[in-house]
Amino acid sequence: MTVGGLLDALASPEPTPGGGTAAAVAGAMGTALLVMVTGLAKSRTNADDEKAALATARAALQPLATRLTALADEDTASFNQVMAAFRLSKATDDEKAARTRAIQDALKGATTVPLETLRVCAGALAHAGAVVQHGNPSAASDAGVAVLLLRAAAEGAHANVQINLDSIKDADFKAAAGAEAARLLAAART
Amino acid sequence: MTVGGLLDALASPEPTPGGGTAAAVAGAMGTALLVMVTGLAKSRTNADDEKAALATARAALQPLATRLTALADEDTASFNQVMAAFRLSKATDDEKAARTRAIQDALKGATTVPLETLRVCAGALAHAGAVVQHGNPSAASDAGVAVLLLRAAAEGAHANVQINLDSIKDADFKAAAGAEAARLLAAART
Repeated sequence: MTVGGLLDALASPEPTPGGGTAAAVAGAMGTALLVMVTGLAKSRTNADDEKAALATARAALQPLATRLTALADEDTASFNQVMAAFRLSKATDDEKAARTRAIQDALKGATTVPLETLRVCAGALAHAGAVVQHGNPSAASDAGVAVLLLRAAAEGAHANVQINLDSIKDADFKAAAGAEAARLLAAART
Repeated sequence: MTVGGLLDALASPEPTPGGGTAAAVAGAMGTALLVMVTGLAKSRTNADDEKAALATARAALQPLATRLTALADEDTASFNQVMAAFRLSKATDDEKAARTRAIQDALKGATTVPLETLRVCAGALAHAGAVVQHGNPSAASDAGVAVLLLRAAAEGAHANVQINLDSIKDADFKAAAGAEAARLLAAART
């Protein structure tokens, strides 16, 4: 999809893609910018241990950028499943029960995806300190924008976890996902 | 450009596209999400004056989303001009003077673009309150992500204004751009 196509799709009144996809793309952009800083020919002091720290961060960050790109699509797919479940027939009691189960299963999927987005953003932010500390100062504003975008993506993913958890009846799932989301958001904010 | 192509370009060690472009795209996504909420069939209460308020916000936000998309490209172009100016010959005193002027002119361009990104993000955020207040509550997390992305974009654009202002010698330009950036950032944060 082109960037223009994504923006048009976000602006359209169709329910997907929505905030979860936008948050994942923002997180992917932030992670990509951190990857860029780790790949610059010069680091802050060009010391060997500094270059090694940046190489470590780079190896960790590259798969996270790829993962966030996939999560942008997965978010749209998971929300489409929720809507498909709501459209199931509810003419008989059996159909009503099957529809309720399908909605609950789909809502869990639509919670698991932004929870994973939040997890990956928190994981990328865990490497941001090393990138800012050791990266070429000429890219300071790139690293700064990266952190801003990853934090906004983490907060946005957390909001999407919460809004779906509100409709989930499975108390164990709700408690576990809610606790992990709170823990990850706290990590992302620090 | 595809979303995947943009992410690859951000991750590459080439200097552009960088944080300024990523901030503009994040702002465009946030604005597009606000446009989406204004276009939903249902508003919060479906009252006529509420629908009118959302229509007003929609008319204001649509051109801002388009503008931010263009600014993503303009940011890359303006930074490429800075690098081109640095590559100018400095063999003679005349060439040195011309190169210095070209660098300063290009830096002003590379300041004006993120300043405009900041201005447009602050403008979009000025309509976010009406969208959150009157928009369909089922899209609350979309509006929330929109605000998060626009704030991160505004902060990121401000960081790019500042880093370029640091190298600009024209005191009047520096004072005016710095003051406007500070004012817009304060507006974006509230």
